[in-house]
Order: sequence, then C-alpha cells, then structure tokens
Amino acid sequence: MNMPIKPAGQAAFKDRYTTKVAELLKPWEEGERGAAAILGVPLSKPSISHSGASFAPGAIRNALNGFTTYRIESGQDLTSPIIDFGDVVMHPTSIMESHERITTAVRQVLTQEAAPFTILLGGDHSITTSAVKAFCEEKGTVGIIQFDAHHDLRNTEDGGPTNGTPFRRLLQEGIIKGENLIQIGIRNYSNAKAYHEYALDQGVTVHTMKDVRERGTAELVRQGIEMLKGRVDVIYLSVDMDVLDQSYAPGCPAISPGGMNPEELLEGLHEALKHPGVRAMDIVEIDPTLDFRDMTSRIAALLVVETAALLNT
Amino acid sequence: MNMPIKPAGQAAFKDRYTTKVAELLKPWEEGERGAAAILGVPLSKPSISHSGASFAPGAIRNALNGFTTYRIESGQDLTSPIIDFGDVVMHPTSIMESHERITTAVRQVLTQEAAPFTILLGGDHSITTSAVKAFCEEKGTVGIIQFDAHHDLRNTEDGGPTNGTPFRRLLQEGIIKGENLIQIGIRNYSNAKAYHEYALDQGVTVHTMKDVRERGTAELVRQGIEMLKGRVDVIYLSVDMDVLDQSYAPGCPAISPGGMNPEELLEGLHEALKHPGVRAMDIVEIDPTLDFRDMTSRIAALLVVETAALLNT
Amino acid sequence: MNMPIKPAGQAAFKDRYTTKVAELLKPWEEGERGAAAILGVPLSKPSISHSGASFAPGAIRNALNGFTTYRIESGQDLTSPIIDFGDVVMHPTSIMESHERITTAVRQVLTQEAAPFTILLGGDHSITTSAVKAFCEEKGTVGIIQFDAHHDLRNTEDGGPTNGTPFRRLLQEGIIKGENLIQIGIRNYSNAKAYHEYALDQGVTVHTMKDVRERGTAELVRQGIEMLKGRVDVIYLSVDMDVLDQSYAPGCPAISPGGMNPEELLEGLHEALKHPGVRAMDIVEIDPTLDFRDMTSRIAALLVVETAALLNT
Amino acid sequence: MNMPIKPAGQAAFKDRYTTKVAELLKPWEEGERGAAAILGVPLSKPSISHSGASFAPGAIRNALNGFTTYRIESGQDLTSPIIDFGDVVMHPTSIMESHERITTAVRQVLTQEAAPFTILLGGDHSITTSAVKAFCEEKGTVGIIQFDAHHDLRNTEDGGPTNGTPFRRLLQEGIIKGENLIQIGIRNYSNAKAYHEYALDQGVTVHTMKDVRERGTAELVRQGIEMLKGRVDVIYLSVDMDVLDQSYAPGCPAISPGGMNPEELLEGLHEALKHPGVRAMDIVEIDPTLDFRDMTSRIAALLVVETAALLNT
Amino acid sequence: MNMPIKPAGQAAFKDRYTTKVAELLKPWEEGERGAAAILGVPLSKPSISHSGASFAPGAIRNALNGFTTYRIESGQDLTSPIIDFGDVVMHPTSIMESHERITTAVRQVLTQEAAPFTILLGGDHSITTSAVKAFCEEKGTVGIIQFDAHHDLRNTEDGGPTNGTPFRRLLQEGIIKGENLIQIGIRNYSNAKAYHEYALDQGVTVHTMKDVRERGTAELVRQGIEMLKGRVDVIYLSVDMDVLDQSYAPGCPAISPGGMNPEELLEGLHEALKHPGVRAMDIVEIDPTLDFRDMTSRIAALLVVETAALLNT
Amino acid sequence: MNMPIKPAGQAAFKDRYTTKVAELLKPWEEGERGAAAILGVPLSKPSISHSGASFAPGAIRNALNGFTTYRIESGQDLTSPIIDFGDVVMHPTSIMESHERITTAVRQVLTQEAAPFTILLGGDHSITTSAVKAFCEEKGTVGIIQFDAHHDLRNTEDGGPTNGTPFRRLLQEGIIKGENLIQIGIRNYSNAKAYHEYALDQGVTVHTMKDVRERGTAELVRQGIEMLKGRVDVIYLSVDMDVLDQSYAPGCPAISPGGMNPEELLEGLHEALKHPGVRAMDIVEIDPTLDFRDMTSRIAALLVVETAALLNT
Ligand SMILES: [Ca+2]
Ligand SMILES: [Ca+2]
Ligand SMILES: [Ca+2]
Ligand SMILES: [Ca+2]
Ligand SMILES: [Ca+2]
Ligand SMILES: [Ca+2]
Ligand SMILES: [Ca+2]
Ligand SMILES: [Ca+2]
Ligand SMILES: [Ca+2]
Ligand SMILES: [Ca+2]
Ligand SMILES: [Ca+2]
Ligand SMILES: [Ca+2]
Repeated sequence: MNMPIKPAGQAAFKDRYTTKVAELLKPWEEGERGAAAILGVPLSKPSISHSGASFAPGAIRNALNGFTTYRIESGQDLTSPIIDFGDVVMHPTSIMESHERITTAVRQVLTQEAAPFTILLGGDHSITTSAVKAFCEEKGTVGIIQFDAHHDLRNTEDGGPTNGTPFRRLLQEGIIKGENLIQIGIRNYSNAKAYHEYALDQGVTVHTMKDVRERGTAELVRQGIEMLKGRVDVIYLSVDMDVLDQSYAPGCPAISPGGMNPEELLEGLHEALKHPGVRAMDIVEIDPTLDFRDMTSRIAALLVVETAALLNT
Repeated sequence: MNMPIKPAGQAAFKDRYTTKVAELLKPWEEGERGAAAILGVPLSKPSISHSGASFAPGAIRNALNGFTTYRIESGQDLTSPIIDFGDVVMHPTSIMESHERITTAVRQVLTQEAAPFTILLGGDHSITTSAVKAFCEEKGTVGIIQFDAHHDLRNTEDGGPTNGTPFRRLLQEGIIKGENLIQIGIRNYSNAKAYHEYALDQGVTVHTMKDVRERGTAELVRQGIEMLKGRVDVIYLSVDMDVLDQSYAPGCPAISPGGMNPEELLEGLHEALKHPGVRAMDIVEIDPTLDFRDMTSRIAALLVVETAALLNT
Repeated sequence: MNMPIKPAGQAAFKDRYTTKVAELLKPWEEGERGAAAILGVPLSKPSISHSGASFAPGAIRNALNGFTTYRIESGQDLTSPIIDFGDVVMHPTSIMESHERITTAVRQVLTQEAAPFTILLGGDHSITTSAVKAFCEEKGTVGIIQFDAHHDLRNTEDGGPTNGTPFRRLLQEGIIKGENLIQIGIRNYSNAKAYHEYALDQGVTVHTMKDVRERGTAELVRQGIEMLKGRVDVIYLSVDMDVLDQSYAPGCPAISPGGMNPEELLEGLHEALKHPGVRAMDIVEIDPTLDFRDMTSRIAALLVVETAALLNT
Repeated sequence: MNMPIKPAGQAAFKDRYTTKVAELLKPWEEGERGAAAILGVPLSKPSISHSGASFAPGAIRNALNGFTTYRIESGQDLTSPIIDFGDVVMHPTSIMESHERITTAVRQVLTQEAAPFTILLGGDHSITTSAVKAFCEEKGTVGIIQFDAHHDLRNTEDGGPTNGTPFRRLLQEGIIKGENLIQIGIRNYSNAKAYHEYALDQGVTVHTMKDVRERGTAELVRQGIEMLKGRVDVIYLSVDMDVLDQSYAPGCPAISPGGMNPEELLEGLHEALKHPGVRAMDIVEIDPTLDFRDMTSRIAALLVVETAALLNT
Repeated sequence: MNMPIKPAGQAAFKDRYTTKVAELLKPWEEGERGAAAILGVPLSKPSISHSGASFAPGAIRNALNGFTTYRIESGQDLTSPIIDFGDVVMHPTSIMESHERITTAVRQVLTQEAAPFTILLGGDHSITTSAVKAFCEEKGTVGIIQFDAHHDLRNTEDGGPTNGTPFRRLLQEGIIKGENLIQIGIRNYSNAKAYHEYALDQGVTVHTMKDVRERGTAELVRQGIEMLKGRVDVIYLSVDMDVLDQSYAPGCPAISPGGMNPEELLEGLHEALKHPGVRAMDIVEIDPTLDFRDMTSRIAALLVVETAALLNT
Repeated sequence: MNMPIKPAGQAAFKDRYTTKVAELLKPWEEGERGAAAILGVPLSKPSISHSGASFAPGAIRNALNGFTTYRIESGQDLTSPIIDFGDVVMHPTSIMESHERITTAVRQVLTQEAAPFTILLGGDHSITTSAVKAFCEEKGTVGIIQFDAHHDLRNTEDGGPTNGTPFRRLLQEGIIKGENLIQIGIRNYSNAKAYHEYALDQGVTVHTMKDVRERGTAELVRQGIEMLKGRVDVIYLSVDMDVLDQSYAPGCPAISPGGMNPEELLEGLHEALKHPGVRAMDIVEIDPTLDFRDMTSRIAALLVVETAALLNT
C-alpha cells in the first residue's frame, strides 16, 4: 500500500538531491566501516557547577541535520558514513562507575576499527581522562592538543574527578606526560596562578589568547604537532568549546569574553587534521539548556563535519 | 561484545519494572493489532494565525514518556500495544493536497483494522474535515462530539479550509448533518453571533461553558450519545484543547480565560468511552512552541492514555 | 485601484461576520458617545519594586483582539463603541507631575461625558489616588471597592506616593473616608499588622481571602454596596490583579499563592455592575514583561468586555 | 558619617512597619533558639533525570522575601526567629559522600536543639533517606507521611540511591517499617505496578489522588497520625512538590496533570501540625531552572511560613 | 482642550529635536513621493520548515523606531519620506493565490512611481519569484544580486514554490537568465552539490564565503554590476539575512556559523547603491519569533535606512 | 563542632588555590584601603525607556565570581582588596532626591580615600551628572572621556534629568566645560543632528565609529588625554556599554548594530589607565533583565578587573 505516511520522528521534508550530514550517521554494526566514528558521552554530573552537558550528544547529532554533505569551497561531497556508536550508558549515582564505563566503551570502539578517526561528543571535560586512558591502553603513548580557556589542572582533593581536573588526573596517574600536553587559548582571569605554575612544572606547553592573537592557531598547532611527532603514538584533540568567545558559544557553562572566534578554532583543526597521527577529538562543555538556538552545538557539528571532510582529502 | 553503550536517542535511564506508555507505541506493520491506533497529522499551515501545531504529534508522543502504564486507581496495567502509524506526509505548499493526503491516510489506517479505536494527533482543527470524510467513506454516517471554545463554523469565502471552518465544510459538503454535531464548551466572546445562528439553523447542538458548569460534561456527553445512537454508524470525538482554560492549557494558539479544567474534559471522555459506537478521537490546536514545559501536550498524552486504558476495561 | 494591500499594522485576517472587541475601540473625538470610556495610565515608576506595568494599557488593548463581541451565554452582541481616550502622557523624571497629569486627564475625560462608565488601565496602583481625586472633584463623594491582596495603606514617609500607599494617601488627604473603602481579597503574609490596624482604625472594611472563601465575592460586594449606597455619590472599583492566585495571574509583580480565581473576581464585578452608582473601575498591577502569553492582560481584557456587556443590559 | 548607602545585596526598599519572613531567618549560632530550624540540602546529582533541585534552597529562602510576618486571617504576627543552619556542603563527585554528609549535618542540627521543628529544603527526594536516618539515630522510631505523586520505591539495582528510591532504601535498610509509611497523592500512570505491590507487601499505606478527592487530605492525615501515634517516636513529613498539579507547581522535574491544588496540600499540613509528634518536614523536587517566576518555590515558602505560624499557636 | 493625553499606541517619549526613521514612514496615498517605497510581504507558509517570517515586516518597521534620521559620519539628515504601501494581504490557505497577490501588489506599487527605489520586507524567500516577476513585467529585463548562504535552486517537484526554490522558478519560467543572477555568500554544507551544478549549468555566478573573505563584498558586487550593466534594465538585490553569521543574525530560520558580518553586507549594499540601475531590494528570512531582542530585524532596519540615505547622496 | 555545612548563599564549591575576584570585594569599613573602590548606583527610573539598569550593580558583582584573580598574560595575581561601598539607597518616587543622594554618596566615598580609583556601577547614564558633580566638588576640574553610541546631550525641557541628558546638564550647569568632554564611539542614526551641532558648539570632541575604525580607540584616548592633561585635575571615564555592538552587549536598553567590539573598548581602557590623572570610571546602561546569560555584565566585570589589574602595575 502506498500510504502518504512516514514513520514518527522522521524529517518533515525531503529534497531528493540533498543529503544532510545527519543522514550519514550509521548506527554501528559489527564490521561497518566509515570516515569517522562518533560516540556520545553524556556525562555532566562531575561538573563543579550545574551542567546539562549530558544533553550535548543529542543536540550535536540533531545539529547535523542543519548541514548538507556538500563543501562547496572545495567541491567535496561527503558520502562515507559516520559510524555512530550511540551513547555510553551512565550510572545515575556512581560517577566513578560512569568514568570506568567511558574507558571501556572507548576501548571497545577502538577495537572495532570502524574508522580511522574517533570523535567523542561530551559531556563535560571530566570525560577526557577516561577517554585518553582508553587510547593509551589501545594505542600507546598519547599526545594531547587541548583547546580551552582553562588549564583543567585543579587539585583533586577539592572535588575529585570533576570537569576541572581531567588533565591533572592524566598527569598524576602517569597516563600522559606534561611535555605531551599542549594547551591553546588559555585566558586571563580564568585560572589560578598555582595551576599555571603546575603546568609549567610539568612541562606542559601553554599558549594564552595573547599567543593566539599574535601567532594564530594554525601556527601554534603546527609547532605543537612538530614537537609531539616523534614522541607519541597518537595525537588526541580535546576541544572545550569555552575556548570560544561568549558571543559565539553562548551555551558553555563557563562563558566569558576574550575568547577565540570559530574561524580561529577551525584553522587550528584544519592544521591538525593534516597530520595522520591525529586520530581522535573530543568536543566538550556544551550545555544545550543554556544555549541560544543551539548555536554552540551547531559549531560543534561543524567541527564534526569538517573533520569528516578533511579526513577524506 | 557487552558494550556499556546504547543507541543514540534512547532514554538515559531504564528501570526494569517500569514501562512507559511511549514504550507501548509500536510502529505499524501489516497485520499488527493493538488497543488503539494513532496517526500524527502535523498540519498547521491552514491556521488563520501563525501556528506551530505541526509540532504537536511529536510533542505528544514525547509526553507519553512521562506516563507509566499503571493506572493505580483502577489497578489496570496497560500492556496492549498502541499501533503508531507515524505521521501523514504534508505538502509544503499545497494545503489542498495536504488535506487530501489526510483523508487518504486515515482511510488506509481504517482499512488496516489495526485497532478498534483511532486517535489522530493534530495539527490544527482544519484536519478534522479531512479525517471525518475518511470515516464517512469507510464507516458510514458519522456523529461528532466536539469539545471546543469555538464553533469553527466560519464562512469559507474569507480564507478557505482554515482551522476556523472544519465543521462548516463538513456541513456544507453534506458529510455530516447538523443534528449529528454536538458542541461542548463554547465560550463567551469567542465566536460571532452569525455562526451561533448558523449552528442553530443547521440543527447543531450547542453547549456553552455555562451549560458545562450547570450540568457537567458527563451529563452533556451522555445525552449527546443518547441522541446520536440510533442515527449514526460511528461517533467521532474532536477535542480542541482550547476548550480548556488558559491556566491549564497555555500552549493553544487561541488561549483565553473561562474554560474547562482537565478534570471536566476527562469526565466527558470517560462517559463517551462507555459507548461502543465511539470509535475515534482527534486532539488538535496544541502549539508546542508556545507551551510551557509541554503542559498542554502532557494533558493530550493523558487523554491518549486514558483512552487506551478505558477501551481495555 | 483595487490593491491586495492593507495598511501596516492591521490584522492579517478578517472574517466578515466577526467583530473583535478591539474594533469597538473608537479613538475619542469631541462629542463621541459610547458604552464605556477607557483611558490608559501607563505609569509604573512609582512602584516599590521594578515594574513594567506601564506596558499594560497596550497589552490589554491588544488582548481585546482576542475577544469577539458576542456573549453567547446571554445572547448579547456588543455594538456600542468603547471610547478610547488614549494614554496619559507621563513625565520621564517627575512622578509628582505624572500623578497630577493623571488627575487632570481623568477630570477632562469625565467632563466629556463620553460614556456612563470609565475604565482606567494602569499602570501600578499609585495611579488610583490621582484618579479618585479627579472623581471627587467632578462627581462628589467617592466610595471604593478594592480587590487586592494588599491593603496599600503603607506609611508615606518611607517612599512617598508609591504603589503601596494609594489608599493611605486618599485617607490622609481626606479625599475618601475610611468607612467608604471596602477591601476584598486581603491575603495572609502579604501585609504588615500595623497597616491592618490602621485600616480598622480608619473604619475601612477588610475582607480577607477566608471571607471570600466563606461568603463569596458577590455577597461581599452586595453588602458593601448596600453600605455605601446612601453615603456616596459614586462608587469606584479598584482591581489590583494580584488579588488573583499566581496560577491565574502570573504577570503581576507581587504574585503569590492563595488568591482568588478569575470566576470569583468576575462574580464580584457582575454584582457591582448591577448598581447604577458604580461608575468607574481601574485595573492595575499587570507587568506584561513578566507575564506568560499575556494571560493576565487577557483576564483584564475580559473584565473590560464584561463591563461593557453588563452595562448594556 | 550618615551615608545614603546600604551594603551590597540588601533589599532596595524598607518599610519601617513591615517585616518580611526572610528577615526572621537567623544564621545559626551556638545556643540560638527559634520557632523552627531550616537546613538547605542542595543535592540533585542523584536524580534520574537532569535536575537543578540543588538551587531550590536558595530559591525558597529568596521567596521568603515575598511574605510578611502577618497572618491576617488569624491575627498572628510571627516574631520568633527561624534558625537557618545554612546548606550542607556537597561533594562534587561522590554522591555517597554527599548522602553521608546530609546524615551528619541533620544529626548535628538535631543535637543543637535550636528549635522544636526542623525543615529541610531539598534537593531531590534522595535526601530523605539520609535525613530520616539521622532522625532515627537521634530520635528513635520514625513515622513518615509522604506527599508525592510517586511511591519512590524503585529497585536500587537500576541506579542506586536515586530520587526514585528513598523510601525503598529506608525500608530495605530497616530504618523505617512499611507500616509507618503513609503515602498521599499517588497518581495514575506515575508508578510501576510492581512498586505498588511492593508497597502493599511492606504494609505501606497508599492513598491515591482518588482518595484525596473523596476523603480530603486533612482526613487522610488525621487517620494516618492516629495510626502512627502509638508506634513511633517522631513523625516526619516528606513533601515532594510534584504531588501538586502541574498548573500550580510548574517547577518540578516530573510535572503532570491530575495532582492536588495547594489548598489541599496546606490542609494536610495544617492537620499534621496539630499533633506534637510531628517534628520535621522536608520539601523536595523543585527545580528553579524549570520554574515560572519561582511559583513553585513560593508555594514551598508558604509551607515554611505556615509551619512557623502554626507551631506558634 | 489641552489634555495630557496621547493616542493609544504612540511613542511614550518625544524629544523635539529628534526624528526617528519610523517617523519618515508615510502611509501611501495617491500622488505621494518619497526617497524609497516599502511594501511588507508577510508570507511564510511556503517555507520548508516552520517559519514566522510573516511577522518580519512588523518587526522591521518597529525597529525603525530605534534609528534616528541623522547619519553622523556623513553629516546627512534624512528628511525625505519613505512611502509605506502597507502589507500585501495574504490568503490563509492558498499559497498560489498569495504569490499572485504579491506580483499584483508589486506591479501596482511600481506603477505608482512613488519612489525611485522599492524595498520589499519579507516574508520568506519564496516571495522573490513573485516580486521579480512584477519587475520584469513593469521594467524589462532584471538582473539579481542575491546575498544568501543558499542557492535556493532546489527542484520544484519536492515541494513546489517553497523558500528553497525562488531562483529555480525564475530560471525555469524564463523570467530571468542564469547569467543575470549573481549569488554572494554561498556557504559550505548548506547546499546540495546538484544545485551548485545546476547553477553553473545555468550560467549563474556563484561566490562562496571563501570568495567573500578573499575579495570582499564590495569588489564582488562591483564586478557583478559591471557584468550586468549592459544586459539588464534593472538590478534587484535580494538579501536573505541568513547570509550573515548566526552570531549576528540569530533570528533566521536557517542559522549556521561561517557567514558574513553585517559590515561586509553593508559594504556590498553601499557598492550596489552607487549604480543607478539598482532599483529594488528585498530583505527576507527573518523570523522574529526566533530572534533575540529583534537583533536581526534591527540589522534589516539599518539596511533600509542606509538605502534611504545613500539614495539621497 | 565540625559541621559539613556552609552559610546560606555561599558558593557551592571552593578550590583552595583559586581566588575569585568577587572574593577581593571587601565591604567598606572606616580606614580600609584597596586597589579600587566600587559603589553601586542602582538607579534607572530616570530612563526614557523602561530600564532595569538598577539591577546591574548586583549582576556585575555576581559576574565577578566568573573571574579569577590571575591575569596569565602578564603574570599578575590580584591580591589587593577592592573596597565595596555598597549601593546608594534610592528614593522610590523622587528622582531628584535620588540624584542628590548619588552626589552625597560619591563625595563621601571620595573623602574616605579608600582607594586611588573609584568605579561606579550604574544604573542608567543619568547618574553620571550627579557623580561628576561630586568629583568636581572634591577634586577640582574634571575632564571626561565618554564611550557611548550617543551624545547624551538632549535638551532637558523634554523630560528633565533623564539618561539622555547627563552631559547636557553637566555643561549647562557649568560643572564641566565642553572642551573637557571627549566622546568616542558615536554612531550613525543614533543621535539628532541638533545635538551633534550642540556638541560642536560647546567644543566637545566627537569621535564617531568611523574614527574608531580608522584610528583605533587607543590612539583616540591617547590624544584625548594629551589634550586634557594640562587643563583638568582629574579624568573620569564614562562607559555606556551600548558603545559595544549589539552582538557583544545584548543587554543594553538601546542596542543596535555598528558598534565596537570588547577588544576595542579594552584597548581604550588600557590606554587611559596608563595616565595617573584618570581616577574614576562609571559603567552604565546594562539592563540585566534583557541580557542573555549576563554577557554584558560579564564584560563590565572584565572592565572592573582589568582596571584593578592595570592600576597595580
Ligand atoms: Ca574550559
Ligand atoms: Ca575544560
Ligand atoms: Ca477552538
Ligand atoms: Ca476548533
Ligand atoms: Ca494594590
Ligand atoms: Ca496588590
Ligand atoms: Ca518523590
Ligand atoms: Ca514525585
Ligand atoms: Ca538562505
Ligand atoms: Ca534564501
Ligand atoms: Ca549614554
Ligand atoms: Ca548610549
């Protein structure tokens, strides 16, 4: 029977020549292969302040409906599927258990080898420790390029595995070395002096917004990768969306003026993706309940799409 | 592999002993049978004023996640599936075509005989004409009990098949007779005198809010069904949510004070469902973009659930 | 030329048989007569707390577009114009000057004798002093029936002619006598004991919400008018919308639970309008910037319409 | 020097004869005594769904600025201080630790004997287990009267000490007996059948909304206390604000139609406070980030004020 | 009589030396002449996704109250009236009829010769086809410079005359030639490859955001006009506000990152207005129900004002 | 006793190594000294349009919780207290009295000599007249550098001491000379020609946004201070936040496109703070009720922090 009916939840309008990036998302099945793999990590209970970042994986996937597959400026039309592993199931009351599940899930995703690049959709920044742990276990030494207004190197006595401590925990637990952590976009009045000193003590490379303005993100990334190349097995990008200025990313819990614009972030991403050692990215700290018209999730979605596109060139 | 992962979009938490009514929704497949069938009719372009009622089928389905299957006051636990036929696919620019597709879709749903009762989730009130037309064609003479603040008997010269004319068109096209139309909840200052007179001329039974306060909805429905019983083959309930007071149903386009409370509407529904000739209901005029916390859709969802429950007794 | 064009700002849709109450509004011109006169009094700078009540005259007039002229329950179809005198022009920085302008404007409205009943659309409650002063000067002794959660009898040393002092100033300035002031709906935890005592000292009649629940507003109004009848030349209704419960009137600055429902307020109004000595009403304390979908202004508009309707019977 | 300056954060306007209930709040100091003690319990991370109930203690305290001390209907003017113990300091990432801190804090509050009645401002409903545990340890056998749409007796395997399990944990851990738990306001489609059966198996008294409508809350409370009187040392009221209908309490995470109105809840409270064994109350499940104009917190504040007032009679 | 009263709806404050651009708006009357003519085209039912663009003409006119007539940087003080033809009356249920009325109305406006330049305030982009048709019929060959993130060249089989097809319909119906269409601001991931190819096949000039960044809008417009000059009788600017970045124009239905800033759009406009052949502009795709503080309408209003100013130099 | 309790209102989480700028705020006490003094001036009733700028001092202080003391780009860690004098107590109904209280309060603050620099947190721009008057009386001749889209030189006949007249009143009352007033950021279509001419007649230096784009704020400020240096005893910065573009400062009453970005404003501030004669700043025209996520107050807070930091170098 030819019914003028579509399944509940399906898009209201379909143009036969247009493919939305969301249509490239393919729920994972054994053996499936794609340009990139994504995994939702909807955890925000570890956040220091109230955060709805657990809604971000859904918001970002939904924002992928706002992008077509065609990158007119380079003539590329994306066709490779993006393998969607779904979301890590979080424990309602045990944050430690949730963190462990993230490590388990990421390892399992990696062992599937469904794609050469893995994108994790946070969640708050606490997820990065668990995710990087999985990469270490599966891939060897990890180097990290972190885009963030904040060091995220707080002491763990005052709150444990919060979204203020992911890189501290990675360093303390010996999962990564300080010399393999590069921070870009660190902002005035957004960190304690003690943690900047800790970063320097640990050999972390710290680039402030002043460095970004003077040298550009592409140059900072290029230099960072140059430095990491011989030392690590895999490079992981960690994108805290609050590295962007509040006028561009109004949906982050910790918004403030003085950040990057999206163009600068994209230039950093473009540079990074030129290097085959860059194999993963997380996008964290978007709280869709605070955002305006999902603007911040739309930028996150653009990062996903650009990644898929540039991996294919 | 036992991954701590769930498909994207799935509920974050699952209690093993709890079933949400949304879980009873079963996408239609040939031969499937259930307690009730639902069909989304996401059309609001015919509305006289700007309306996002096309989002209501999604909002109501989503609200079904807020209800469990257990009706503690009667001890019933719903288990029969609700067959979900999905949504009618609307034409972006031809309202006439959309109206025709509704008739086609409803006829096809009826011929499937998937359930003894059909629930249409509007959409604006213009959809009722198309739906009732399908019932006429499939089931014979139709009687209608309409809950509404408004007659919806406007002339069709001033705008065509809008949400102000559904019953006018049914009468003019001879699809129903005026004597088989019962209106409950008609409100002061919400209609033109000319249309009240038209209603009386056509033999329509009109119960105002004053009648509701004096006699109660159950009594009005009982009397209405008594009257319709011998005359019609099937009785169709048409529930315009603006029959409720603005404090209860803030999400209708045409809110105003002086309406029913949800208890009164439910009593009318309970009475109607006692009679086997009552075979269908539409729920219309909810605009989720105007609502507060989907309160109006939650009441609509309760109407759906109560219908499923009472059909099973 | 017959252009398919309408002047900017005009309603998008016009049904030829339907008249909106807003269409009965007729900008005042010399010699014009109508069922009632309205005057906007957009003053809220005297409010103790931040208030946008100055937007209420516009919001209420606009809400009159949501009501047709037909009162189905009594069969009345309103046709008499409502003479709209526009808004008092307020001084941006001199509240005293604004208050004087209100008195001047109300006096001028009264001398026009454009209608037997005058409705003032506030503004905050501070406007009542100025308005009643005008009535005194033009009409003689004034009795007031005040619907309010609050006495509005605060001392004037702590802030001057605020929205907390209108009746205190009327009493202190000898414009009305305490025995001619009847307060209905006074609520627990909404007043200082000192002001209740002041009210009793002055001979003010005070009915709390408990009285409303036990005796009903109609009865309280009936008794009040009985008492005032011989003593005063004109009776003035002052309706502070916060007499309603917060669930019905979410747009008042001082919302709280425990108030009337709109039905109770309307019953009071209906009773009052039976008496020819009742000649004026103000509606105050709606802040449209705080409201939800102008619900509170819609109830205010219903008060206006009901007044016009009941004056005509 | 007499500066026209006030400390930052202080109220903008002060009427010399008016005292706000918020002014009765007195930060706890050793030896202080008052009519009631309050303790904020800002924990919502255990919630099954995203909840900002951790903001409720602040919102309720703030709402106390909207109430004066004068209860006009009984002539009472509150003067006894309400001892404010502040808020329990929660652990950012260990929910178990937070729950333990609640027990510790409540015990310490009780040992201070600062007031004959203790009010806990949640937080989500998970806090009740920890609080009742403290009462048990300090006061002996506890009976509970719970106002709630939900049993809150979910299994603990599927999420641990969430806001769905507080009474289950109390029963399982033997802290209270089922026969000493009375649930009022349980709603259709809001619970699993399995948990209703569990309640009955445990000897819990369950009153649905139908019971509320037929017998009234005062009667149900009276009977409950009669039953508990001989058996327990102290009676604890647990008020989940979602027992109220969504139109009155729009700020609860789990809103739905079909609940009590505030009057019904207050009648239950009034009845309970007549009995000297009733010594504590918690108010939970208000998420101020979802509320409209803090309506739900205002009702909660009224519960606090009424408690203080009725304890003093 | 000198009453301190102003007509309802008039601005609350008037400074005697300040003229708002909104005060230059003069409702059209036979024979009236002005610097520019405006016509509202409040149609958004053809939109593929839900759109309230029908509210934009009102929002833009209202935003003109936020601009004075004085252009300090050039010393110009606007005094010529802007002739306001009001709004095209749309048909509630026939989109075809509405489109025809637009053509009729625009033709009638043009025949009035009330101004040398005509500004159409949409509405969604579907209106452009109808408007350009009128220009063709009245003025001869039309060239179009389109500012847009999207080609708007979708096939018409999948939805008819939507806001995705205006230029396709113009080409298919032979109203304009592809070589006379210049698109500026076309964005990555915002179009299907098939439509880009269609554009190229038709000889359309396509400038992406990359071109904008590299060459600037002024240069692109200059070159475009150079090309069109000999070929067409009149040049029409079509400004889809979504050509702007989401951070500047948050009120467009199809927002995304990666667009122009307002300065770039203004530079394009300035360049275009240097050429006398440029005679009309439409401004489309603003949905005021989605905007934040009418920011997008304020930019649209600035386009209107700048046009009026630059036409006068 | 070691209770896991904190006083109500205190921050939920404290990291032992991190100090928020808000923690540097020290309520004023006799003899206290700090890097800067702040005084809240919560007055917005003089505003021409409805304004909640009276809430800004609270919002800005609160935003200081979003900034740590560490300025990573210069290595500075702020430790000097910021002396908080609290808020001027405003009169509810006498704007003249409120303005006088501001002068009194600022004089008293200055005589305390608690800090070398004073920051006033408005309020609307009307407060500047009263504040500058105090500086004149205490410090001698005052020069002003005003960042604003508007001249604020309106005539005072049409509304008195509004937020449109602060500099007019200063000039008319001879408190400052025109040659000592420098305006930066004046915008097209935001002023009347008459007032620009008045500015020039009075010898005011006027820099438009075009000047800002061509020469930069630092250069304009440098030149301004050069000019003022010999002539005045103290230089006062007056920062109307609407000098910023609407996309950055969405919370100003009079938003419009075409303004500065925050970087440009900061550069101007940095330049000004190099000169020891610059001794005060006001920050005005933020209405937190209109803002999005307090973005505008966050920029204001950054101005406060940067001032404190640069004063210390
Ligand atoms: Ca960060
Ligand atoms: Ca981070
Ligand atoms: Ca209706
Ligand atoms: Ca209807
Ligand atoms: Ca009042
Ligand atoms: Ca009141
Ligand atoms: Ca509960
Ligand atoms: Ca509950
Ligand atoms: Ca577009
Ligand atoms: Ca377009
Ligand atoms: Ca200013
Ligand atoms: Ca300004």
